[in-house]
Amino acid sequence: MSLIVQKFGGSSVADAESIKRVAKRIVESRKAGNDVIVVVSAMGDTTDELFDLASQVVPVPSGRELDMLLTAGERISMALLAMSIKSLGVDARSYTGSQAGMVTDAQHGAARIVEVSPRRVKEALDDGAVAIVAGFQGFNRGTGDITTLGRGGSDTTAVALAAALGAETCEIYTDVDGVFTADPRLVKFARKVNIVTCEEMLELAAAGAKVLDVRAVEYARRHGVTIHVRSSFNNNTGTLVVNPKDGESVEEAIITGVASDLSEAKITVVGVPDVPGKAAQIFTIVASANANIDMIVQNVSLASTGRTDISFTLKKSDAEDVLRALTFQQEEVGFESLQHDDQIGKLSVVGGGMRTNAGVSARLFTALFEAGINMEMISTSEIRISVVTRADTVAEAVRVVHTAFGLDGDEDAVVHGGTGR
Amino acid sequence: MSLIVQKFGGSSVADAESIKRVAKRIVESRKAGNDVIVVVSAMGDTTDELFDLASQVVPVPSGRELDMLLTAGERISMALLAMSIKSLGVDARSYTGSQAGMVTDAQHGAARIVEVSPRRVKEALDDGAVAIVAGFQGFNRGTGDITTLGRGGSDTTAVALAAALGAETCEIYTDVDGVFTADPRLVKFARKVNIVTCEEMLELAAAGAKVLDVRAVEYARRHGVTIHVRSSFNNNTGTLVVNPKDGESVEEAIITGVASDLSEAKITVVGVPDVPGKAAQIFTIVASANANIDMIVQNVSLASTGRTDISFTLKKSDAEDVLRALTFQQEEVGFESLQHDDQIGKLSVVGGGMRTNAGVSARLFTALFEAGINMEMISTSEIRISVVTRADTVAEAVRVVHTAFGLDGDEDAVVHGGTGR
Repeated sequence: MSLIVQKFGGSSVADAESIKRVAKRIVESRKAGNDVIVVVSAMGDTTDELFDLASQVVPVPSGRELDMLLTAGERISMALLAMSIKSLGVDARSYTGSQAGMVTDAQHGAARIVEVSPRRVKEALDDGAVAIVAGFQGFNRGTGDITTLGRGGSDTTAVALAAALGAETCEIYTDVDGVFTADPRLVKFARKVNIVTCEEMLELAAAGAKVLDVRAVEYARRHGVTIHVRSSFNNNTGTLVVNPKDGESVEEAIITGVASDLSEAKITVVGVPDVPGKAAQIFTIVASANANIDMIVQNVSLASTGRTDISFTLKKSDAEDVLRALTFQQEEVGFESLQHDDQIGKLSVVGGGMRTNAGVSARLFTALFEAGINMEMISTSEIRISVVTRADTVAEAVRVVHTAFGLDGDEDAVVHGGTGR
Repeated sequence: MSLIVQKFGGSSVADAESIKRVAKRIVESRKAGNDVIVVVSAMGDTTDELFDLASQVVPVPSGRELDMLLTAGERISMALLAMSIKSLGVDARSYTGSQAGMVTDAQHGAARIVEVSPRRVKEALDDGAVAIVAGFQGFNRGTGDITTLGRGGSDTTAVALAAALGAETCEIYTDVDGVFTADPRLVKFARKVNIVTCEEMLELAAAGAKVLDVRAVEYARRHGVTIHVRSSFNNNTGTLVVNPKDGESVEEAIITGVASDLSEAKITVVGVPDVPGKAAQIFTIVASANANIDMIVQNVSLASTGRTDISFTLKKSDAEDVLRALTFQQEEVGFESLQHDDQIGKLSVVGGGMRTNAGVSARLFTALFEAGINMEMISTSEIRISVVTRADTVAEAVRVVHTAFGLDGDEDAVVHGGTGR
């Protein structure tokens, strides 16, 4: 008898019919002789609707109360799912984050899990029941208050429970068949990837692949949990996200996938005096605006002026605050002007095999050049190369790069649209 | 500094605007120097919508899971209300039933409060914050599970907190000005009652007056809590529901009010053998169908047949189950047939002064006779007389009785429509 954790996102439980379909699926797993823990997100757009409601009442809601509000969402879906499973003759019990022992720090809206004490979940399994756990939520021991893990937090809940209870696999159900070599909505011939390492998945997720939450993959890597990303609409095997142990080897493709991201903007600080400490000064200001920076490029300085330009990318939604903070300290830093560009797109190729294969960047740059696509910024990690282009050329860029690295499959990719939370 | 408990029903917090209005009102109470505990119901029709959702998933939901589902409702309203109060510069913290220490038995959907340990609520007050508590919900210590108190349970939550913390008054805010001498939608000249005893209020509530939940009034009587029923739309004094101490006297009107109820049906068991034990047998069967009986009338038996008829009234929704249970045991009981009548209405006059005033029933019966309204059943308590008539004559009956007892006021009653939960 093995223990399986199954996580269903909001799109898998969007209405009564979907909940009944998911319940049947869970009952099949249980009847196949497994102990089953289910982690569930709020139904469909519930979380967005609750956010909306809060913004109708106050411009900036209190973190504690916003968490109290949002956690109503999973409460609804998990209770309905438990009812539905019970009506199929299998015992089921739903547990909130605090009932399931998801202890977090006190950072409302972005809490981190510090301990998992799933005593009641274990008791339910011992009694032969399916345990349904609310994703996304936890509680802080010091304050006794309810917390949430932030967007995508349900994936992390699932991985954390799998780690704490030593589950065989953590299945993340979504509305696509798994991790693809590229977004199937952009690339007709994108292929499902059968196996990928946590490291590659982390780079893909950070580069814009939305199928799995970055923190969940980090957690899985740190605790050695295997994730199985698969569709809730069929029984196909999806993508395994694995942690090869030392000495073990996963045959890694040179390029596992091509990801794209249209959510970033570029800010250029023009005419920065080329003296030591200026970059530190600028990025201290940026950090004080609570913005996360992605790529940074510094031009060579012109000897004639003794000044240089520094460009960086960040979430579009953070740009306004950062521009304000920089403008406020323009005199102190001594730069000349700011440029803001929200029409950029980022393309990344990711693959563990890149380490042992030369010529990947050459092949990438050639493909883009031949397609007439201009690169504005370049950044690399050990297993990833990212380039920034004009936003309206990204889709085409992904297609030509996908072809250039021989990733195109034989058949059309099946698209269900949207991705679960 | 006095402690006030304020309860707001679903219609008082139906949308963002209402929540902001209620928040302002609470802030005024706080700024006037009071410690304030607020008990809040789910927004508008949320509870009904969640019920609907459950019934789309399963015909008969599990009690534990239904409670988990329904308690999402107050979670939403209380978090929004706390945000709104904080935005007005007054600290506020929301607490679920379990966080507020509402310990109940394990009867899902109809739990009874067994203990109130509002440690966190007290801490919030000590810190100068307004404590917002979810109405309607609690938890069971043995199972650790979430429970609900049943319809109208938020009133009971408020009274129980007032009792546990020794609050000066428990204010129940609703969408009418208080308790009226009759339903203002039926009687144009109904007057607001300024003061009423718990005993009278209990009879009125049991007789169909919906402004306060029966259990809340029982709890208030048992624990000596004064309830102030008032409108959330104005600052008028409403109705005080008091507990006169021994020796103290409240000048009681002969008749405090006239209530009506269209929610009952009548079942007549025809041709019951007139031998000892038959009534006991019949009502044991009725009880086994979990039905609450209101009025019971047994006709004198006909000597010629040695048989009698027994009629009783009960909630319309319970009638079907009771008819099935009785039919199933017809042979054992030996009755001839069953009659089911769901076109009845009940009118009740209630007043503590009835004890010391003769002639109340004569005046009631005369008024109905003169209006040509036929009485089908009569039942009395020490301070109440109820009669059953045809459903379509009840409104007229209430009007003539209201006039006959001199209850008509000088002005039209103000009606806001609907009553809060």
